[in-house]
Amino acid sequence: MPSIDLATIAQTNRTGYPPPYAALVEGRCVRRVGEAVGLQDFGVSHVVLRPGAASSQRHWHEEEDEFVVVLSGEAVLIEEDGRTIMRAGDMAAFPKGDANGHHLVNEGEQDCVLIAFGRVPVGNCHYPDIDLMVSGGRYCHTDGTPY
Amino acid sequence: MPSIDLATIAQTNRTGYPPPYAALVEGRCVRRVGEAVGLQDFGVSHVVLRPGAASSQRHWHEEEDEFVVVLSGEAVLIEEDGRTIMRAGDMAAFPKGDANGHHLVNEGEQDCVLIAFGRVPVGNCHYPDIDLMVSGGRYCHTDGTPY
Repeated sequence: MPSIDLATIAQTNRTGYPPPYAALVEGRCVRRVGEAVGLQDFGVSHVVLRPGAASSQRHWHEEEDEFVVVLSGEAVLIEEDGRTIMRAGDMAAFPKGDANGHHLVNEGEQDCVLIAFGRVPVGNCHYPDIDLMVSGGRYCHTDGTPY
Repeated sequence: MPSIDLATIAQTNRTGYPPPYAALVEGRCVRRVGEAVGLQDFGVSHVVLRPGAASSQRHWHEEEDEFVVVLSGEAVLIEEDGRTIMRAGDMAAFPKGDANGHHLVNEGEQDCVLIAFGRVPVGNCHYPDIDLMVSGGRYCHTDGTPY
């Protein structure tokens, strides 16, 4: 049965971000759908952003394409060029290697639900606003020292 | 600007299916979104199924994971195990190598809009209901003779 029953997939707000950067995603509730149903070629996450929550810290990947589609509610896409309101059916793509830090923030009072796609994590990730990066598969300061 | 303006992406109902199998997807209107915005890790297609249209002939891939999420309207997921109605927000996953032929058919009177994800085409594809397969990157009869 390939249709997906979300109720059977665990939801978590866990993050690998060190403090104080974890607080921004405390209201980000994720179901790892792709993994749960046996997909290997790409990752699929069902994400609920509670009011005030962000999809991530603003970031960009050297080696991972990303894609999001909003299913319900509203979030603000924040990137180098500015802000874009995204609503149900709106999509955004973030090609790897494009140094355009981005994230979605729920600035409203209702939940926002979206689906996020990516590949298996690989390569470095940059966070232009904060003292954080992913290098060699782990979070560290931008000077390379570990948290 | 990573948010996607669908109006800038060409829509086509082209198919590689030989007759008579092409008729079923005549009302399938596709925008190759991932390609248009520079994604390389996975494919993303915005698909409108007109009333009567199917997403494909019923098929399964040996080496390509697939995933769909419905944005609006309604379609029937038809697979080995039966039929499932899919509406806005509903998702389905088709892990590669699972010999469960599947497609979505719009049996209603309104358009159905969905997003389909996959990897770069690779490997064979099987169509359990008809005399068609993909072998060596081309459509052929199930005995391997070309169309």
